[in-house]
Amino acid sequence: MNGSTIKLSHAQFDEIMQERLPFADMLGLRLDSIAEDHIVMRSCVEQQHLRPGGTVAGPVMMGLADAAIYALILSRIGPVELAVTTNLSINFLRKPEPADLLARATMLKLGKRLAIAETSIYSITLDSDPVAHAVATYSIPPAA
Amino acid sequence: MNGSTIKLSHAQFDEIMQERLPFADMLGLRLDSIAEDHIVMRSCVEQQHLRPGGTVAGPVMMGLADAAIYALILSRIGPVELAVTTNLSINFLRKPEPADLLARATMLKLGKRLAIAETSIYSITLDSDPVAHAVATYSIPPAA
Amino acid sequence: MNGSTIKLSHAQFDEIMQERLPFADMLGLRLDSIAEDHIVMRSCVEQQHLRPGGTVAGPVMMGLADAAIYALILSRIGPVELAVTTNLSINFLRKPEPADLLARATMLKLGKRLAIAETSIYSITLDSDPVAHAVATYSIPPAA
Amino acid sequence: MNGSTIKLSHAQFDEIMQERLPFADMLGLRLDSIAEDHIVMRSCVEQQHLRPGGTVAGPVMMGLADAAIYALILSRIGPVELAVTTNLSINFLRKPEPADLLARATMLKLGKRLAIAETSIYSITLDSDPVAHAVATYSIPPAA
Repeated sequence: MNGSTIKLSHAQFDEIMQERLPFADMLGLRLDSIAEDHIVMRSCVEQQHLRPGGTVAGPVMMGLADAAIYALILSRIGPVELAVTTNLSINFLRKPEPADLLARATMLKLGKRLAIAETSIYSITLDSDPVAHAVATYSIPPAA
Repeated sequence: MNGSTIKLSHAQFDEIMQERLPFADMLGLRLDSIAEDHIVMRSCVEQQHLRPGGTVAGPVMMGLADAAIYALILSRIGPVELAVTTNLSINFLRKPEPADLLARATMLKLGKRLAIAETSIYSITLDSDPVAHAVATYSIPPAA
Repeated sequence: MNGSTIKLSHAQFDEIMQERLPFADMLGLRLDSIAEDHIVMRSCVEQQHLRPGGTVAGPVMMGLADAAIYALILSRIGPVELAVTTNLSINFLRKPEPADLLARATMLKLGKRLAIAETSIYSITLDSDPVAHAVATYSIPPAA
Repeated sequence: MNGSTIKLSHAQFDEIMQERLPFADMLGLRLDSIAEDHIVMRSCVEQQHLRPGGTVAGPVMMGLADAAIYALILSRIGPVELAVTTNLSINFLRKPEPADLLARATMLKLGKRLAIAETSIYSITLDSDPVAHAVATYSIPPAA
């Protein structure tokens, strides 16, 4: 991650989420912070995000992971909205209680055509152990 | 899949989705059919499921894949709602047009503790080529 | 897979394996057949491929899966040796007995830059149930 | 990783590798170090581990990743040789030069039935950027 500068502001990403990613609202997604080497995305968990067992539904965590990595990549390459996920693999590690989730995403490789990143998802009720971990590959359009 | 009988009716799964999986409604999920060796789940795609590029958002397809495999497993083991995904890996193959998606799920292995299944997702606008393909592992609680 | 013609002969692939892929020999790999819509690769399992439990070691199956998909892709695009795996995800389903394995690989998507394929691995001692299943993405060099 | 003690010595793992995992020798695997929160496994890369492009063959890195995670798990639960991989997902990030590789593995979750861990693989010729990253799930037998 040698000295990459941030190429997308918090406000720019909020605008993309609000205007172009309606499912982000369904999942209660909100960008928390953009830093030089990682970003943090939050899911504000509500009743409609739960599943049997009193825990958060898997698709909510998958959507959070995907959005966190999308934000990370756009923060590195600029507002290239057409970057698309080609592959995502997620492991569910612990059942989170019905409370907000935080996804911390870091880059594994930022290439010209492919970007690969990982994210650990934490529950705000559980300090250090992640509740899920995902790795995703994004395809970056040639124009970018 | 040697002669396994169906242990969950279409109506039973609809009830689980409606009462216990509120995100299924957000994603427009609807069980299409349960057969001896596969199930089909539909996502009724609407405006809020789209993303930049005029295509369906990845999390919608991830949620559809997960729900299709959940339905498949419950159709084999009965209404064990506490079965949970431990791992899901998805590849996005083609950008689907904004139209309904169909996930066809089949079992790879149904064990006592773990079930592994795959699903291909098709767009109703595209005949034979899948738009996404996922494999997921579910953990089955000991009680089941 | 609409009418794609085979662009690599059995003999050509054998030559690539023998001259350029020394690990193929370590894993006992041998191309069985190339067909219009799939290929079959065999691993001739010997003592050095086993692990505790009297079963075949995971890395042997991973190598077989990767080689089967490599052969499938080259059979579709010609002898582009520099095609490289970017991602591989494998599920181990059943413990194979110490006997030859057969990997049957089929294409999920053949694009210009990325090819995605899946393979089921079977033991010759077990008729219909796969012992492993893998999905891999290959990056195809621009020159190809 | 709250204060887990190491339950397998370096010598014990070497013995398991030498006596029970013959493919470890084929892949040039050698345990480098076991620490409280991670282990490091080396692959001594030789001519037979290369592939077209002058780089290390994918199956060598897959075998290294799998063995590193196996060693990590055994270092936490003791010499439970029958622990088996149920799922492994690997991303190849950069083409390593023909030189030794080091896999650093850390635990994501150590449960009673399943353990999930990740590993980054580094080339000794490249300081900080990983050449591959893998996540694997192991199933731990009930007896353990």
